Amino acid sequence: MRFASFTHDGRQSFGLIDGDAILDLGSLTGSGLRQALAAGLDNALARKGEARRLPLDALTLLPPIPDPARIICVGRNYLDHLTEGKNADLPAYPGLFLRFASTLTGHRGPILHGPASDNLDYEGELAVIIGKPGRHIARADALGHVAGYSCFMDATMRDFQAKYSATIGKNFPSTGGFGPWLTTSDAVGDPGEGLTLETRLNGATMQSSSTAKMIFDLPTIIEFVSVFTPLEAGDVIITGTPEGIGRARKPPVWMRPGDVVEVEIEKVGLLSNTVVAE
Amino acid sequence: MRFASFTHDGRQSFGLIDGDAILDLGSLTGSGLRQALAAGLDNALARKGEARRLPLDALTLLPPIPDPARIICVGRNYLDHLTEGKNADLPAYPGLFLRFASTLTGHRGPILHGPASDNLDYEGELAVIIGKPGRHIARADALGHVAGYSCFMDATMRDFQAKYSATIGKNFPSTGGFGPWLTTSDAVGDPGEGLTLETRLNGATMQSSSTAKMIFDLPTIIEFVSVFTPLEAGDVIITGTPEGIGRARKPPVWMRPGDVVEVEIEKVGLLSNTVVAE
Repeated sequence: MRFASFTHDGRQSFGLIDGDAILDLGSLTGSGLRQALAAGLDNALARKGEARRLPLDALTLLPPIPDPARIICVGRNYLDHLTEGKNADLPAYPGLFLRFASTLTGHRGPILHGPASDNLDYEGELAVIIGKPGRHIARADALGHVAGYSCFMDATMRDFQAKYSATIGKNFPSTGGFGPWLTTSDAVGDPGEGLTLETRLNGATMQSSSTAKMIFDLPTIIEFVSVFTPLEAGDVIITGTPEGIGRARKPPVWMRPGDVVEVEIEKVGLLSNTVVAE
Repeated sequence: MRFASFTHDGRQSFGLIDGDAILDLGSLTGSGLRQALAAGLDNALARKGEARRLPLDALTLLPPIPDPARIICVGRNYLDHLTEGKNADLPAYPGLFLRFASTLTGHRGPILHGPASDNLDYEGELAVIIGKPGRHIARADALGHVAGYSCFMDATMRDFQAKYSATIGKNFPSTGGFGPWLTTSDAVGDPGEGLTLETRLNGATMQSSSTAKMIFDLPTIIEFVSVFTPLEAGDVIITGTPEGIGRARKPPVWMRPGDVVEVEIEKVGLLSNTVVAE
């Protein structure tokens, strides 16, 4: 199943994707997808017979979770991405940074190219959305806490990241493409078994890898994170990018206004964003 | 003026402190302090004649902003704190990390001492609460964006910070003491001119400094932050801690369940928290 958050006629809601339409569940539950995850999606699904059917092309998709309490991002999590960077040493633990919810933009939403930096780089990543809350989660139980998956464009002001930190280079507004929807875990399986992940810039393939190549797999990341913070329904974990980023190319490739950047992950979806001058 | 957020009979609200009572403004505006800041505090204050008066000792104080969209923390911002650390080099720019809102705890709230770490350290700091939104804010305009100030106990799992990062060491739940209230800018003046800041552990003074000793003053921090993120009403900036932390002592001093830790800042207030086993 695939669940999306959206606006329709100025109203915010979420629903279940059904072919080229969406069954509007949010207008029945009076909540967003995050709250519906917390209450149990079965409760929302029980009412799908009553739901209004809206054509997908009549609405604007939002980030699947527009307002996560936590967006936790893993850096340096693919081996071939390490060796294209300045520090090729294998990390001993997942290196983390956080994003503000204000950095998110949905499918077809703008990635903002601001006046502060010309070094706007792409990073295609698998996003994990937590369904079942937990703390001190054991590896063996970790995947049971995942509601589903989505695609993420972790766009980065590479010069700010290099000069200051990931916290600063990755928190510019509207730089986190997130979507198009949440595909439930049962439809995806274990990403550790390998989902192809591709990033395309104006149609050209820039990154092509498999989620099986993560240095720290999902159970390891969830166990690590849940030591220091409780995880709640709707929390988002971004799992790192494979090789092929713009900075590592000769000459470097930076995204410019008008560019179209896509992240496609097998079984999960295809996220498309356009770069727009701020 | 001093504004506090609180719960009373299970209901969450905010109000204006008036002697040993609080004028309940939130029940009139139907909002929290963050939303009231965004709408302009004058709108809420215009109705204070109608407000119910609640004795302070009948309610539980919450963090003045219980749900900030951004909690941005400056590390290494006092010279004498640098020299007690492992890296005494003067920073070239403000080093930042972020906290989740879930890490906050109000005046008299618990600081949690968890099973993962015995190295729970204190850091008394000045908290800045944004009132007027802005982006690319110039130094000269920066203090005009501040609604007011509060005290912050930036409690840290020091071993996790050293081994992993500030992001991890400072995002354990209920480790960010924040309160007791927001004291408005007009009552505080420019912290750059020097407010005494004191941290006490079980009554013993552990940190004693002045906010005039910050390496990066408030206008510099606000200008720097607003380059990469828009600032909104209710956003919180934590400005770093002076010397005297527990780790730098011989032997190190770690907080234990039952300890009472206080942060007192001249003209701003006195924040008290008790360390409690998780």
